[in-house]
Amino acid sequence: MSWWLSKKKKKFPRHQIKLTEDNKCPTMTRVPEEANPNRPLDGQPLHEIVGEVQNFKVGDRVGVGSMVGSCNSCDNCADDIENYCPKMIFTYGGKYYDGSVTYGGFSDTMVVDEHFAFGIPKNLPLDAAAPLLCAGITVYSPLSFYGLDMPGLHVGVVGLGGLGHLAVKFVKAMGTKVVISTSPGKQKEALENLGADSVLAANGTFDGFVDTVSGQRPLLPLLGLLKSHGKLVVLGAAEKPFKLPASHLIQGRKLIGGSMIGGMKETQEMIDFKAKHDIKADIEVISMDYVNTAMDRLLKADVKYRFVIDIGNTLKATW
Amino acid sequence: MSWWLSKKKKKFPRHQIKLTEDNKCPTMTRVPEEANPNRPLDGQPLHEIVGEVQNFKVGDRVGVGSMVGSCNSCDNCADDIENYCPKMIFTYGGKYYDGSVTYGGFSDTMVVDEHFAFGIPKNLPLDAAAPLLCAGITVYSPLSFYGLDMPGLHVGVVGLGGLGHLAVKFVKAMGTKVVISTSPGKQKEALENLGADSVLAANGTFDGFVDTVSGQRPLLPLLGLLKSHGKLVVLGAAEKPFKLPASHLIQGRKLIGGSMIGGMKETQEMIDFKAKHDIKADIEVISMDYVNTAMDRLLKADVKYRFVIDIGNTLKATW
Repeated sequence: MSWWLSKKKKKFPRHQIKLTEDNKCPTMTRVPEEANPNRPLDGQPLHEIVGEVQNFKVGDRVGVGSMVGSCNSCDNCADDIENYCPKMIFTYGGKYYDGSVTYGGFSDTMVVDEHFAFGIPKNLPLDAAAPLLCAGITVYSPLSFYGLDMPGLHVGVVGLGGLGHLAVKFVKAMGTKVVISTSPGKQKEALENLGADSVLAANGTFDGFVDTVSGQRPLLPLLGLLKSHGKLVVLGAAEKPFKLPASHLIQGRKLIGGSMIGGMKETQEMIDFKAKHDIKADIEVISMDYVNTAMDRLLKADVKYRFVIDIGNTLKATW
Repeated sequence: MSWWLSKKKKKFPRHQIKLTEDNKCPTMTRVPEEANPNRPLDGQPLHEIVGEVQNFKVGDRVGVGSMVGSCNSCDNCADDIENYCPKMIFTYGGKYYDGSVTYGGFSDTMVVDEHFAFGIPKNLPLDAAAPLLCAGITVYSPLSFYGLDMPGLHVGVVGLGGLGHLAVKFVKAMGTKVVISTSPGKQKEALENLGADSVLAANGTFDGFVDTVSGQRPLLPLLGLLKSHGKLVVLGAAEKPFKLPASHLIQGRKLIGGSMIGGMKETQEMIDFKAKHDIKADIEVISMDYVNTAMDRLLKADVKYRFVIDIGNTLKATW
């Protein structure tokens, strides 16, 4: 049951990963249609995958995130930001080098270019590691790129889901004060269990926001909460364009920026940072036959905070 | 004929400037209503003023830009970015410390806190210096703050008016390749007289844009022209909010930022940079009695590129 076994030779060495009994993978996430309107899949993608290397160095613990290929020749690839390569290939719903469609992690085996596999440190449980490979790097990369990872800053996290709960944990580990903006029902949880310092405060007091919400939401209140030179980083797509008055950026020299996952080098750095600081994603491990129920719960945002499917124990291997 | 002679003592020392016969000042600019909806003036503001100091050090050449006061105690004032002080006082349409309204440069004398006067180098003609004090710093500051001043970058300037023509000259002096996006009628002028390297080119080729246009304009084509991590800096207000799809920022990690004039320290740095590189604003010097005609021409964008009123020679001094 392998979704992808291309024989085409590429520059990057490839290796085969067998998702064994011990491994619990991959995570399940809800992606709005507009995030990747060209994807040829009807189902939900699975794109945070961990397993053991079989043909490269037996026993190595590795993971595969949201991408499995890139051109390996453009400026972005040379700069270790393959995630912004114009020819980057998504792990699900992408077209591989040979034209075949990529189907994510609903599989017991996969073949991947070595360049697109991460090492998973031994002290990091595989099930809690998987959500790092997309959700984790998606919040870690902008914190670093936009300079919101410095101790003493005042950073807000908008939304408390798969991405948001990891953002709170990263921001805290970076020594930054974190404030959570989420639905009232989640505030107690954020303060007591995730380490958030407070819930939303006064205008002009934030150095930056990491907005993890997908779908329509107003940006102007967030811009008002920023200090001068504050940065609002949006990570989730929305069905309709934001409405953005220029004056809200001009007065106070504020900016709105985007960010999308992260490069391979930076993702490995994030995994190692997480292992060092003992940051764990909050997950609910499910069996393969629970997938449809999990989908229904996802649509109601009824998960804290990421489903991880135990494919090793619940999907029979074909080799 | 002095618009403002407050006796209130402030921390900053104040001095009186007499706008003498030799001085040609200030510039005249068109500001859309939404840029400063609270201003109490019906007329057009004049806010780039040069003259000779009378009571501080006689004979010093100084200028006053868009601001004449700030709180002098907030973080922004301490960081030399008084322009983002929440209590910054505009040179026109602002409320001074004593509650009086500021009326810009339609005057033969003015009193100003020393902190808010710039030194004008002797090799810089006063008439060509005046447009620096708002237009010049408005384009210089974002080039520096957003890192678009490094040699080898590919920077676009949108709009070729009072701000845009100075942006082209600054970008060239910084060693950066500059491409101009403007109406077809102005392209020849930009290439032949201002030093632009080319007119608009292919998608994904720009490190940044300085958008000097005021009023409604589409942003999406500019975002498409940016490389990954490209920066679109908007300097002019618009009547309606921009429509901004999140995906255009997320894919390619692009950002839209704003910027508004600059701090006193940075403005002095810009004036000295301009004097060193012999950059001159292109101006049309007019007499005071030409103001109404100039206003009509401004509304038709019929000026290359800034009107400067010769107040010294055409407005009789009252002292």
